[in-house]
Amino acid sequence: MASLLNDEEIDAARFLTPGCAEVIHLNHAGASLPPQLVLDVQIGHLHAEAMLGGYEAAASAREQCDAVYDSVAELIGARPQEIARMEHATAAWNAAFWSVPMRPGQCLVAHDHEYGANIVAFLAAAERRGVTIERAPSDASGQVDIDAVGGLLEQHDVALVSLTHVPTNGGLVNPAAEVGALTRAAGVPFLLDACQSVGQRQIDVDEIGCDLLSATGRKYLRGPRGTGFLYVSDAIVDRLVPPNPDHHGAELVAGDRFEWRDGARRFEHWEHNVAAWLGLGAAVDHALGWGMDRIEPTVSARADQLRSMLTEAGVRVYDEGSDRCGIVTCATDAVESSELQAALALQGINTTFTHADSSRWDVDRRSLPSLLRMSVHYTTTSDELDAAVAAILDTVRGR
Amino acid sequence: MASLLNDEEIDAARFLTPGCAEVIHLNHAGASLPPQLVLDVQIGHLHAEAMLGGYEAAASAREQCDAVYDSVAELIGARPQEIARMEHATAAWNAAFWSVPMRPGQCLVAHDHEYGANIVAFLAAAERRGVTIERAPSDASGQVDIDAVGGLLEQHDVALVSLTHVPTNGGLVNPAAEVGALTRAAGVPFLLDACQSVGQRQIDVDEIGCDLLSATGRKYLRGPRGTGFLYVSDAIVDRLVPPNPDHHGAELVAGDRFEWRDGARRFEHWEHNVAAWLGLGAAVDHALGWGMDRIEPTVSARADQLRSMLTEAGVRVYDEGSDRCGIVTCATDAVESSELQAALALQGINTTFTHADSSRWDVDRRSLPSLLRMSVHYTTTSDELDAAVAAILDTVRGR
Repeated sequence: MASLLNDEEIDAARFLTPGCAEVIHLNHAGASLPPQLVLDVQIGHLHAEAMLGGYEAAASAREQCDAVYDSVAELIGARPQEIARMEHATAAWNAAFWSVPMRPGQCLVAHDHEYGANIVAFLAAAERRGVTIERAPSDASGQVDIDAVGGLLEQHDVALVSLTHVPTNGGLVNPAAEVGALTRAAGVPFLLDACQSVGQRQIDVDEIGCDLLSATGRKYLRGPRGTGFLYVSDAIVDRLVPPNPDHHGAELVAGDRFEWRDGARRFEHWEHNVAAWLGLGAAVDHALGWGMDRIEPTVSARADQLRSMLTEAGVRVYDEGSDRCGIVTCATDAVESSELQAALALQGINTTFTHADSSRWDVDRRSLPSLLRMSVHYTTTSDELDAAVAAILDTVRGR
Repeated sequence: MASLLNDEEIDAARFLTPGCAEVIHLNHAGASLPPQLVLDVQIGHLHAEAMLGGYEAAASAREQCDAVYDSVAELIGARPQEIARMEHATAAWNAAFWSVPMRPGQCLVAHDHEYGANIVAFLAAAERRGVTIERAPSDASGQVDIDAVGGLLEQHDVALVSLTHVPTNGGLVNPAAEVGALTRAAGVPFLLDACQSVGQRQIDVDEIGCDLLSATGRKYLRGPRGTGFLYVSDAIVDRLVPPNPDHHGAELVAGDRFEWRDGARRFEHWEHNVAAWLGLGAAVDHALGWGMDRIEPTVSARADQLRSMLTEAGVRVYDEGSDRCGIVTCATDAVESSELQAALALQGINTTFTHADSSRWDVDRRSLPSLLRMSVHYTTTSDELDAAVAAILDTVRGR
């Protein structure tokens, strides 16, 4: 097993991240602090566009743009032609979701920890395509109940299994590979929302067995806002129908006929933000440089440390799961989470508080109050956790 | 009538645009050269994200982000709630197109000068929704034949009229307001692809009478790549079904029910590139500062000048239309347009050459060869045109 990043390496990572000197950032699951290089790559390309022209700068950067597909593919154990450039995770997830054939009477299998945006899409699909929604329950740990997924696959005509790998709240990591084993055996498409797992967890799409995987650049990958990607397995791509193709994803071979482009790029649109895509590539390369096998345990250990500190301090932790990640959620009786977030922000400590909208089913199931969410990364130090917990306690005592 | 920008004003505009000192840019219809301020606004926000965090920087810039809607609304004579932030024109056009109710047996009315991406969507809709495609012919000038549109509206059950305001090639401006008068009278939705007209033409959605209008930031608006917007008239918004909503466009009021957000923003996704959106706002404000009533005639006059120069030099101009814009297309018998483009590029003169894919119907109808496309803006000078025409002639003579 690979070792955690040591203190010297964490110091080096912080040195390469200008924001670490400015704020205590416990909002990496919102948008992380990018390394300076990610910023430089974007700004460099924006300058090139302003000086040479946007098309001309893109032509000069063609090889670098192509290399981003290779980097992303390496990150998740895919082949470059299985990667589509996307504007963000929502664009990626929707492109995937609406491409899956669904017939009236079929069902979508999902889990209580689905992201709010996905729930909206399920409800829309129920209306438009006549599918039903089957919610797989959580097991005792809060993770998706694998036996229940197996049962649903046996009992129903399933159009798609959808899973949020790392939910907005809950701190848990869903056992994606166990779901993948079931969907592969059943021959049912499996869409993994990896928006919050890519960049903090080791991901291998073959090991997981997902057919589709969507991700964003701004969260744990430490890339730019307005970036993302979609993985589409070569094994499934020809069974899917990209929902809103343009003449980049589909070639107009005649005035009345188009043909899909090879591979995942049929899901892309021609127009895009080139600087942001290059920035994403720099972020992925940065992560690969540290090694996902070392980032994952470093993040998880730091989050465990924070959970222990909060519990010892008498702050209730709401995390679930036997496998846990870098997202920590808690609440106090004394102070509303939104107020807590605001009080911490005044001290330069970045956190968020949860909205029911983002994880509707989970909030309803667990009757959750609004939670304070603190998400750590490999750049997070013990000193930062000390400061954050002290600030929470100060705020509570101030009541 | 407002006056053209004078030479001093053009010099000032060039002084504010660093790229003008670097290249002769005749590719404003591809991606224009942004003013320094557009670059500064983006870079400033990217720095803020890196220093404060992406969410935290967005919270600080909330008022500026909201103001972009006001600016865009002012640009096209709409109300701010009728504007949706989009990743680019293709995202905007597709969001609009796929939101329009279509029943089998209905038809889509389009014109030969439609953009290639839109043609792909028409063909996909024919397959998926059972609609037919009725191509309104061009009149003698090459613009859409208004009588023919009227006839199609009388003879068919029309789901949508789609029009490309300023086509990729052809130099023409389609008479959008005349189409709008017909669609209003018929009560049929009208989608205007204004990707290449916004920023060079005065646009008033009420005068035009379109229900939906899509646009990009990178072309004549001189904004960032990866930006765009969609106008959705208040009068039609409740009859449309946004194709891939998230929990920003649709509020999850319960676990099994969502409600559309007010106005056009139901078409948006929550995730976006904040820096790019702010850059778009700066670009729109810059255009408003010069005044669209002055930009339009300045651009058109410069393009007419180029057409005359080319014709005098014996280079065939392929432009159509009685109303013409800043896009000039030409070709020579001696040198392929792609080679011409490459030869000009070596001299620091930016142009493009046309791909059949981008305007398939027009290319087929007119049996067009590949064309050299030169697109001017209000920053373009006579000296630049002299240099470009001389370079074309040199290249031809070099054969």
